[in-house]
Amino acid sequence: MCEANAYMMEGEKEILIMKSVDKVTIEDQGLLLVNIFGEQKLLKARIHSLALVDHKILLEPR
Amino acid sequence: MCEANAYMMEGEKEILIMKSVDKVTIEDQGLLLVNIFGEQKLLKARIHSLALVDHKILLEPR
Repeated sequence: MCEANAYMMEGEKEILIMKSVDKVTIEDQGLLLVNIFGEQKLLKARIHSLALVDHKILLEPR
Repeated sequence: MCEANAYMMEGEKEILIMKSVDKVTIEDQGLLLVNIFGEQKLLKARIHSLALVDHKILLEPR
């Protein structure tokens, strides 16, 4: 499986928001994360960068 | 390996832009894609959505 973990950047730190993220969509209200278990999180955030081989989605507050 | 393929949405179509994308970063000039071979593409685009289990990054023009 090729899901990734989503982290929120807070200064120097990266806070784990959700593991095993499959789908990410940009909604008007924010960023919708859905993991491989179907769990959802809607965040006031945007994508900062992806590093897929490292299974990493970096988010920043917006 | 958990890279994904990047597609640009053009109306109903999805045009393959780059295979085996590892890193995506949002730069001032656009979106920088880097694949697992180190090849780079800089696009005037933004991320529309991700579907990682399907190895898919959907982009839209900006």
